[in-house]
Amino acid sequence: MVLPTFEDIRTAHELIKPYIHQTPVLTSKSINALMGCELFFKCENFQKVGAFKFRGATNAVFSLSDAEAASGVGTHSSGNHAAALALAARMRGIQAHIVMPSSAPEIKKIAVAGYGAHITYCEPTLQAREETLQLLVDRLGLTVVHPYNNFKVICGQGTAALELLDEVKSLDIVMCPVGGGGLLSGTALSTKALSPGSKVIAAEPKGADDAFRSFRDGFIHPSVQPKTIADGLLTSLGELTFAIIQKNVDEILTAPEESIIAAMRMIWERMKIIIEPSSAVPLAVIMENREKFAGQKVGIILSGGNVELTKLPF
Amino acid sequence: MVLPTFEDIRTAHELIKPYIHQTPVLTSKSINALMGCELFFKCENFQKVGAFKFRGATNAVFSLSDAEAASGVGTHSSGNHAAALALAARMRGIQAHIVMPSSAPEIKKIAVAGYGAHITYCEPTLQAREETLQLLVDRLGLTVVHPYNNFKVICGQGTAALELLDEVKSLDIVMCPVGGGGLLSGTALSTKALSPGSKVIAAEPKGADDAFRSFRDGFIHPSVQPKTIADGLLTSLGELTFAIIQKNVDEILTAPEESIIAAMRMIWERMKIIIEPSSAVPLAVIMENREKFAGQKVGIILSGGNVELTKLPF
Repeated sequence: MVLPTFEDIRTAHELIKPYIHQTPVLTSKSINALMGCELFFKCENFQKVGAFKFRGATNAVFSLSDAEAASGVGTHSSGNHAAALALAARMRGIQAHIVMPSSAPEIKKIAVAGYGAHITYCEPTLQAREETLQLLVDRLGLTVVHPYNNFKVICGQGTAALELLDEVKSLDIVMCPVGGGGLLSGTALSTKALSPGSKVIAAEPKGADDAFRSFRDGFIHPSVQPKTIADGLLTSLGELTFAIIQKNVDEILTAPEESIIAAMRMIWERMKIIIEPSSAVPLAVIMENREKFAGQKVGIILSGGNVELTKLPF
Repeated sequence: MVLPTFEDIRTAHELIKPYIHQTPVLTSKSINALMGCELFFKCENFQKVGAFKFRGATNAVFSLSDAEAASGVGTHSSGNHAAALALAARMRGIQAHIVMPSSAPEIKKIAVAGYGAHITYCEPTLQAREETLQLLVDRLGLTVVHPYNNFKVICGQGTAALELLDEVKSLDIVMCPVGGGGLLSGTALSTKALSPGSKVIAAEPKGADDAFRSFRDGFIHPSVQPKTIADGLLTSLGELTFAIIQKNVDEILTAPEESIIAAMRMIWERMKIIIEPSSAVPLAVIMENREKFAGQKVGIILSGGNVELTKLPF
């Protein structure tokens, strides 16, 4: 198993720069005062398709040879990765095939179709999704782009921390949420290369703490019946992301649902920006561990801003 | 009646620059594509206290002589102007007295008190508010800062358009919402001075169209029982703002409630930023008048981002 290095992330950044938004880093005096530390929010909610996922998908798509690209790309997903892959493929002028359970929310189907992807519907089980995707691979020869356990995807996700650390110097801590670990592994690689003195702390919902337990126990615990509002963080770690996380992450901390919702609301109200629940988990972890973070200079990657406005938790 | 000129706005900008945020100008490719025009949003929702009102209040407070300032400032308001005046006064180190109806929402009382202002409660009628404020003037000698019909406040509000036009050149149209007319009159003065070729178009809710009718008829119609979700736009024009608007505004257009809500939702969903309903009225007007705006380069001042998240219209 070949692990990416920071040089691979630097290369990814050069490749995807023309296609992605260099998102802003925002601060809030009032949140700093409330939390007793200095926070720098890297706003991937302003990224194309509304999430950091566009970085990894774009790196995967634009790293393909022309011959590979000609057969298209595919994934099974109904979330941000599907939209990201669809848009990246359209930008390269190739076909994206998205396998989705027929039960997926209408709004997600419309989003993915809106980016010009070809949607294949299947039964709402992981097995059906994988089999349907395999059929497409066999028939079309497309390249499967896994949402996180993929070398190129990890390198793309690492470019968010690269930009953050280029802009804000001497952070004590860099934080991001962890689900499958794509964002976390890329963030950890960039941080340890660009700012070796900074700690990397991942944030996970208590109700979906498989990464916390995997990190503690040294093997991957699958995510079984996770229960959290942070719907971007439901998946298990992959072999590749776990290997990087074991080597480069300092700590994984968890936060309960009430704190995640309170942190989300604080960012909405104080910063006037829309973030999805997954993005609020690092701030929730800070709320739960105030002494640990007191006086620290902390960079936080806000992973995305895709929420259904009719289903808010407040 | 002495009307402000653009030179007064320039002076205001120099004075308040150290205290205000120079807010960003954001764009959205997807909204541009949907609307068929090119939009530049000046984000006063990111201004201190979450609204453009901080500009005017800061100019009023910092324009006082030391002797005047020593007696404090006051206003009767329960909205953004009260919070803005409170914070500006605290920054200058003087006392702000806010007269509020005892029925004002708890959240607004807390906000104003949080900025260190002294709150005097009264009955929820305009008469009670004015009488209570007058008592404070008589007793303390404080300077009353009207939320919009005030020379210095108008000059402060005009600095948002000044920054917008410094940053984005050759706009065909500059738009903002109109309530009491403070933002509109300042915006119109800045626009006609810095970009004489640009049209100034104000946006008003159909359910509170007193400015539209006043502009058409040449005299001030009071705002009687306005009905709109855009709660920042309920007031009548003032003598001062109306005189400036008559001379410098090209057109006032109105939009129905459905369009205001749809425009608000479009900005939340596509731009991932939180704006209050009043801020959505210009985009709602564009939705209602697509041919008029087709292909135009339009600057829009997003007036603020203070919404109660538990009372959203979607």
